[in-house]
Amino acid sequence: MFRPEIKVFDCTIRDGGLMNNWDFDEKLVKGVFEAMVAAGVDYTELGYRVSKKIFSPKEHGPWRFSDEETLRKVAYECDTKISVMLDMGRVGIEDVIPKSESIIHTMRLATYVKDIDKALEMGKQVKDMGYEVFVNIMAVSHALEPDLDEALQQCANSNIDGVYLVDSFGYLYSEQIQYLCKKYLRNLPGKKIGVHCHNNQQLAFANTIEAIICGVNYLDATIYGIGRAAGNCPLELLMGFLKNPKFKLEPILNLISSDFKPLHQKLEWGYQIPYAITGMLNKHPKIAMALMKSDKKDDFAEFYGSVVDLA
Amino acid sequence: MFRPEIKVFDCTIRDGGLMNNWDFDEKLVKGVFEAMVAAGVDYTELGYRVSKKIFSPKEHGPWRFSDEETLRKVAYECDTKISVMLDMGRVGIEDVIPKSESIIHTMRLATYVKDIDKALEMGKQVKDMGYEVFVNIMAVSHALEPDLDEALQQCANSNIDGVYLVDSFGYLYSEQIQYLCKKYLRNLPGKKIGVHCHNNQQLAFANTIEAIICGVNYLDATIYGIGRAAGNCPLELLMGFLKNPKFKLEPILNLISSDFKPLHQKLEWGYQIPYAITGMLNKHPKIAMALMKSDKKDDFAEFYGSVVDLA
Repeated sequence: MFRPEIKVFDCTIRDGGLMNNWDFDEKLVKGVFEAMVAAGVDYTELGYRVSKKIFSPKEHGPWRFSDEETLRKVAYECDTKISVMLDMGRVGIEDVIPKSESIIHTMRLATYVKDIDKALEMGKQVKDMGYEVFVNIMAVSHALEPDLDEALQQCANSNIDGVYLVDSFGYLYSEQIQYLCKKYLRNLPGKKIGVHCHNNQQLAFANTIEAIICGVNYLDATIYGIGRAAGNCPLELLMGFLKNPKFKLEPILNLISSDFKPLHQKLEWGYQIPYAITGMLNKHPKIAMALMKSDKKDDFAEFYGSVVDLA
Repeated sequence: MFRPEIKVFDCTIRDGGLMNNWDFDEKLVKGVFEAMVAAGVDYTELGYRVSKKIFSPKEHGPWRFSDEETLRKVAYECDTKISVMLDMGRVGIEDVIPKSESIIHTMRLATYVKDIDKALEMGKQVKDMGYEVFVNIMAVSHALEPDLDEALQQCANSNIDGVYLVDSFGYLYSEQIQYLCKKYLRNLPGKKIGVHCHNNQQLAFANTIEAIICGVNYLDATIYGIGRAAGNCPLELLMGFLKNPKFKLEPILNLISSDFKPLHQKLEWGYQIPYAITGMLNKHPKIAMALMKSDKKDDFAEFYGSVVDLA
């Protein structure tokens, strides 16, 4: 039995781009898009949209900007909806064209709780331009409960389509995910609710399953788990778990064989002790990523002590 | 808050030995034992005990036999109890000496449901010799419900100390683990209940947490998740999760730095697509392990098709 409301939301290029500065070649991104179409995946997020006044296209790959022109080279409107992510503070409304001129279907606004007003103001404008709009509240494991409650209330009163629960640090386990999912579902009646998990403690897939059990319908995943540091919920595991016959696993497996296993050798996302340590201690993975580039990369106990001292 | 009844059961050498034919050097095993003592781990399983009439010591490493003499070179009686595993059909009661002559505290008998009578017969003999005895019912995801129920009833009526739920194929997810844990707890009043998870779908740690939530107190794990194919619940994650102040993470982290990260480069247990495929399709990992040694090791979609056809 499957729940037809469940939507699989691929963010391979967008979150994976955090590992290679969004410098994927066009052929690979086209391959990802075609695989998602063949696999019956509902959404694919092909990058961020940030302002070129803030970031130089000379210093960042094309999928950090995801221009309309760039997107049209690899994708087209079809049942697999195209998304881009807008990072609050790094993009303006002048960077968004009306939906009628774009193949993009959905824009997701990434924000911290403290910037929820900015996100909802921009969300309203983007929604009025014709897009489906989600607000992704990042780092929820660092949010104070009353602040989160207020932010969810503001989302409930807004015209946005949905809200994502984002475990940015890979800190949460099942009981915490259940608690938060129930809160989102209760406080956001009629809104679409999604979940985006990180894999620091090898809990991203398990937590995504917990969210499904709670009634969450929008599920983020990436091919072979690519994403910042420990990465995300592996799309192949999620597709193997879901029962909707429209989902096909083979196109994803083929892409892992041809592209993502070799890419993994190079970019090395996934389970590593420093990421596990920041996950279990509820810290941003950037300190682990810095360690991994240093000559102390294998001094795990020392790193653990230093992260405990941060608390 | 912690539950004092919770016991962490390390099986690094025993399950890890499936990846190197139990050919760990003595210094490493001594290092594992000392780390477990320092970390406050309750049990450490230092190998299998199989018959030398069935397996030749010339063809297998010392930790497949775990002789008393061998064990005494690396370990001693203390708060961290020593365990060995007896594989039904591969060992006889003549291979077991009385507890009064041994530093071993616990023997775990690995059996399939169909061999439960053999296991309980031997279990009684081993228990009468003075050991703590667990029966580990393997491959529970392939057991028919009435057969499993009958086996649990037999265990309940026996003199063994406890029973383990073993997800040999890494197939189960949280709701199934909860269902089975509740069945074990309900049908085995007064017995110690344990869980041993495999990591094919990155669910070993998550499922171990689910078992804890259900009331299971004996928790198998291995350093850096070492074990057959996709491996087991990583001990470092479990230690990071548990709240009992007697548990120390640093000795485990030090051993990963010094020994297990280098060993992982060589033995390559852990998440791999072929293991994920046998996990999601509830199949023994040996077909995936065979694929991994062939020149088709990266033909994931073809392998998936061939495993689906096995059903």
